[in-house]
Amino acid sequence: MVFLSISRRTRRTPFTGINQRLGVQSYTVYNRMLLPAYFRSLEEDYVHLCQHVQLWDVSAERQVEIRGADSGRLVQLMTPRNIGTIAPGCCGYIPLIDETAGIVNDPVLLCFSANRYWLSVADSDVVLWAHGLAYGLGLDVEVFEPAVFPLGVQGPKSDDLMARVFGSQVRGLKFFHFAQMSFEGHPLVVARSGWSKQGGFEIFLDDEALAEPLWAALWAAGEDLSVGPGCPNGIERIESGLLSYGNDMTLENNPLECGLGRYCDLTSPLEYMGRDALRSIAAEGVKRRMCQMIFEGPVVELVPPFAVLAEGEEVGQMTSCCRSVRYGSNLGLGLVRADRAYVGSTIEVVHDHAVRRGQVREVYGDMQG
Amino acid sequence: MVFLSISRRTRRTPFTGINQRLGVQSYTVYNRMLLPAYFRSLEEDYVHLCQHVQLWDVSAERQVEIRGADSGRLVQLMTPRNIGTIAPGCCGYIPLIDETAGIVNDPVLLCFSANRYWLSVADSDVVLWAHGLAYGLGLDVEVFEPAVFPLGVQGPKSDDLMARVFGSQVRGLKFFHFAQMSFEGHPLVVARSGWSKQGGFEIFLDDEALAEPLWAALWAAGEDLSVGPGCPNGIERIESGLLSYGNDMTLENNPLECGLGRYCDLTSPLEYMGRDALRSIAAEGVKRRMCQMIFEGPVVELVPPFAVLAEGEEVGQMTSCCRSVRYGSNLGLGLVRADRAYVGSTIEVVHDHAVRRGQVREVYGDMQG
Repeated sequence: MVFLSISRRTRRTPFTGINQRLGVQSYTVYNRMLLPAYFRSLEEDYVHLCQHVQLWDVSAERQVEIRGADSGRLVQLMTPRNIGTIAPGCCGYIPLIDETAGIVNDPVLLCFSANRYWLSVADSDVVLWAHGLAYGLGLDVEVFEPAVFPLGVQGPKSDDLMARVFGSQVRGLKFFHFAQMSFEGHPLVVARSGWSKQGGFEIFLDDEALAEPLWAALWAAGEDLSVGPGCPNGIERIESGLLSYGNDMTLENNPLECGLGRYCDLTSPLEYMGRDALRSIAAEGVKRRMCQMIFEGPVVELVPPFAVLAEGEEVGQMTSCCRSVRYGSNLGLGLVRADRAYVGSTIEVVHDHAVRRGQVREVYGDMQG
Repeated sequence: MVFLSISRRTRRTPFTGINQRLGVQSYTVYNRMLLPAYFRSLEEDYVHLCQHVQLWDVSAERQVEIRGADSGRLVQLMTPRNIGTIAPGCCGYIPLIDETAGIVNDPVLLCFSANRYWLSVADSDVVLWAHGLAYGLGLDVEVFEPAVFPLGVQGPKSDDLMARVFGSQVRGLKFFHFAQMSFEGHPLVVARSGWSKQGGFEIFLDDEALAEPLWAALWAAGEDLSVGPGCPNGIERIESGLLSYGNDMTLENNPLECGLGRYCDLTSPLEYMGRDALRSIAAEGVKRRMCQMIFEGPVVELVPPFAVLAEGEEVGQMTSCCRSVRYGSNLGLGLVRADRAYVGSTIEVVHDHAVRRGQVREVYGDMQG
């Protein structure tokens, strides 16, 4: 265990003081901003998340705003997904790729109109990427990071809690839709989204002065729902197969091998960076596939990435790993050589000279690649 | 004190295992990579650095390589400094700005030739910025992050230590010059540079397998020089007035107010982004200036940024702060309103309802702005 040295550069959020009062024990740094990693322990946080409702300071999920006449053109240039299918008021998961089809980020897009978008980004400077492209191409857009700080409300009791604070209309919000909702007379963007599969919402706070009142209102309304502090949980996200940019995929990977083929338009005449590269990869067939893997033995102390073997030969890498509560075993995500990437395929992990046996539990993606 | 949760995303370096064996206590995350923050304590590390020699894992100082026929054009586009003055074999500090003159990063440039450069970057994704610009402009360049991991050798005994491992030729290397030097038959780029004012070198390791042997060779050769592990030291850098991107300057700041006017060519017909914006700022005069400030009282527990006052009125911000060993007082850096930015100007900091008196010790820059 090591400490984290905090400075202005590892940006605090409007909720950092609250997190500290509520006993956050560990942080990670995400988009150069503090993101809580656990409060009690990964396991205790996990159990609570799956049963109750948690408030998550996910300010580190920065918004990149793209505004202006060429907004749609710029967003489409960056992603292989057809953004024409994402209507105003809707969210869409859009992998961003460069001209080699390497993944630059995997944000959730919020479409306000054909002239205004937010990219709710994973951990890389999409604001510099989009700004550089726009400047070079002479596009009529503004690209900037607005002062918006998402607060997640996650867990099976999220609807009940949100309805008490924002009214019952929130129950009607469909998955990956968003709407303006009022808090103390201030309109806030609220989406049914979030980085877990336990259900929930994200409130895009755009007024720092409302951070304490908003948290306090949710906290008070959730007392009998056992509301607690939380954060994206390493166990839950690996069990749910939610990929993490920087962990499970980097600029070295393409979306087809990562199981994101359903977000890649390979056939229409859509113009985007990396289209030709993606088509070549699809034509040749991917060499690796993203898998969820389980393996036996005591809690593994290896820090990813580490090798995945089959009959002693290296066939892939584990890029995230946890002790799964659901399966009572070690569980991880990573890319596995295509011929070994099928459900039930046996694998091995070597730790401390001991061979741990395991198997592939799931292969992600639609085999399109 | 909070812990740091480490994952693949917060990248380990080839030296991370060594740092952990030698007792690193705290990290920061810099360019999505682990950067040690202190080993014993900031104060003890400082005292050792100023007297002896330290090995620093500054792998987090990533290199962005720009290679190809349009390399020079791209690098020049990004910086207001005339890069024509930086010859092959030389380093140059080059602030990068956008079209509003906002600072994007402040790397050290290493010029290999007119067709090949490294930008040794501070904490933002210059690789995405440069790549986006190059793609948009259709430039004939490759932009990528090579697998290069700088190892700093810093402190007054650096020359003695380096001469024992690389030969006495290293003593002849001028400040901000670099050369290829051999280690175990492998050529390595060695520069007289580094993020302290205690003297020293950076060795740009490009072969991970050499990390342990290189560290071991320097360690063994330095035994009687009291060689120790270290890292960029918060006290030393504030005393020395070394600005930190993300702390003392961000995209919200321009190089003129940050005292970097001597790196800005405002008069020649040089073509770079933000030239017109910089000229306007220079013509109007800067509104704030970067200052080093001292203030009284016990060790301050405030985490920057915090307000700097004068006669009760807010006149600036402290963006970095430490307990200075040299001055036995609190010492910080930050921008102060131009009319209050002069040596001896009195300031105040409020902490825990107590007013701490202080003054401006130094104003950075050449007043060109």
